Amino acid sequence: MEKLKNDLFLRACKKEQIDRTPIWIMRQAGRYLPEYRKVRVNSDFKSMVKTPELATEVTLQPVDIIGVDAAIIFSDILVIPEALGMNYEMVESRGPSFDWTITHESDFNRLSKSDLSDKLSYVFDAVKLTKKKLNGRVPLIGFSGSPFTLLTYMVEGGGSKNFSQIKSLIFNNPEFAHKLLEFISEAVSEYLSLKIKCGVNAVQIFDTWGGLLSPDLYKEFSLKYIKKVIDNVERTDEPIISYAKGIHHSLIELADSGADVVSIDWTHDIGEVRKLIGNKVALQGNMDPTVLYANTDTIRREAVKVLDSYGHGSGHIFNLGHGILPDISPANTKALVDIVKEESKRYH
Amino acid sequence: MEKLKNDLFLRACKKEQIDRTPIWIMRQAGRYLPEYRKVRVNSDFKSMVKTPELATEVTLQPVDIIGVDAAIIFSDILVIPEALGMNYEMVESRGPSFDWTITHESDFNRLSKSDLSDKLSYVFDAVKLTKKKLNGRVPLIGFSGSPFTLLTYMVEGGGSKNFSQIKSLIFNNPEFAHKLLEFISEAVSEYLSLKIKCGVNAVQIFDTWGGLLSPDLYKEFSLKYIKKVIDNVERTDEPIISYAKGIHHSLIELADSGADVVSIDWTHDIGEVRKLIGNKVALQGNMDPTVLYANTDTIRREAVKVLDSYGHGSGHIFNLGHGILPDISPANTKALVDIVKEESKRYH
Repeated sequence: MEKLKNDLFLRACKKEQIDRTPIWIMRQAGRYLPEYRKVRVNSDFKSMVKTPELATEVTLQPVDIIGVDAAIIFSDILVIPEALGMNYEMVESRGPSFDWTITHESDFNRLSKSDLSDKLSYVFDAVKLTKKKLNGRVPLIGFSGSPFTLLTYMVEGGGSKNFSQIKSLIFNNPEFAHKLLEFISEAVSEYLSLKIKCGVNAVQIFDTWGGLLSPDLYKEFSLKYIKKVIDNVERTDEPIISYAKGIHHSLIELADSGADVVSIDWTHDIGEVRKLIGNKVALQGNMDPTVLYANTDTIRREAVKVLDSYGHGSGHIFNLGHGILPDISPANTKALVDIVKEESKRYH
Repeated sequence: MEKLKNDLFLRACKKEQIDRTPIWIMRQAGRYLPEYRKVRVNSDFKSMVKTPELATEVTLQPVDIIGVDAAIIFSDILVIPEALGMNYEMVESRGPSFDWTITHESDFNRLSKSDLSDKLSYVFDAVKLTKKKLNGRVPLIGFSGSPFTLLTYMVEGGGSKNFSQIKSLIFNNPEFAHKLLEFISEAVSEYLSLKIKCGVNAVQIFDTWGGLLSPDLYKEFSLKYIKKVIDNVERTDEPIISYAKGIHHSLIELADSGADVVSIDWTHDIGEVRKLIGNKVALQGNMDPTVLYANTDTIRREAVKVLDSYGHGSGHIFNLGHGILPDISPANTKALVDIVKEESKRYH
């Protein structure tokens, strides 16, 4: 059994009593860090994802530089569609772009989930190397996109303004959408299970696009498959965090999904959400990422607002309500981490 | 006193008893109509906005072609920033782009709200001409952006991904943000009052961006100024509709703002919202605009879902939860209007 020097994050996920609130930051291994950009200048994004030494290096940076309480493996949610047979390129400042998209039922035959463990060996190698280099300092988080979020990319072919392709699929051929979601769910379950086997201490499922669905369609096309993944992931006591954006209508249902932690966006009062869903799960979040554009006094005020809204007791992991933005100053990020470590003590 | 041949929309705004649910569609005078594109091919977007004959022509199209129960004057929310001193261009498929943006406190001196009625005379002329051509067939709606939404454009200079400029302003110089919002609110109040004086039968305030704020900042920087506008608009019995996207956290407060109608996005179950806010206001909405990509059976199913969720009784204006998309088929749009007219009877 691994002995972690700092296990605050894991204990908060399990709602155990601790001395202060742990903090990590979504997208913490990223462009806002000069140290990341130094690695990135010699390597394109996908090569960084696919080279365990580089992925490990940038994964460790926020632990060393910012002082967060958990590391998250540097990777991309689109490694799954790629392993299933859809190559993509990451276009600077425009986001991902796939070589082809799913448009017809026959496209299903172009997808295959055989040999996932080989095709994604670079991720598992990065996890193992990172665990070694972390040497028990903090826990390591693995992650995946939710089945619906991955399907959205596979159908839209990249980012989208109106999400017309995925919506058309859902409305005009719901059976095919379900068939695809079932298939992706199996791949995601296997992927997260393998990550856990390689040593990650927790996993997070990012459902970036579930919130673009109406409440009933969210439950039918997104939540259902998040549950399926949670049910099927092989784990011992590794917590599962479910991050969802814009699903104010289904927080109770998400808390009942089997996830240990629900991670919420900044449009919620986290204290209200705690009241709403009771003690079923821990909560992660939820400061507006743009607060980090402000001065330290404002950052302190807004961070304390979140801590204060959650209130006393365990079960809170401090985070932003969405990923950190690339033009945020590392000094402000470090200030936030220090503020949360200091100010949160009085809530425990 | 004007006698309207079809006043269902106005009576629904006032929650009066009627025979069926009225319907109109946000952005109904727009690119999805071949008849609109025919006008557009000979004129750029801003010339259409600024030429009363053209604005009138496209305003009437959805009444004639689609059969909606209300017209909305063809215009743009950015006519206000322009009248205040900020010229903009509408760049095809990229959206608006301003010549300059508000970055320093001294920029306040470049704004002026004198002679609004002259500078915006083309809007008022379009309203008068449209009223004449409508000849009482259906009511005419006027509109404005909310002060916060307009300020967002004036600070960001156009569309934005992360809204870093407006957020920085709010966090780093809240006093200046309030000064600007106060100023814009006065302009919006005057503008809507003048529109009513020229004959519009109702006005809608579009708060497209309020939902990007956390709950407390929404109340401080957006809702407060929506209320101010509602308080200051000079009207007799013209209803005010407040459209807000992504403000699930403040629906009760918005219903208490003085608006007669709250217009909601498609991430709500409209019946739940009705239960939540009681009988204070009428509700407008809220079908997902992408349902119009589907076949007629699906459109019927989804439209009935909305009608059924709202339930029996008056106080519902059917609409989409956001503007109609430019690649929607007019036939499907017409089908939706016919379906709502037919299916809604049994709820009255």
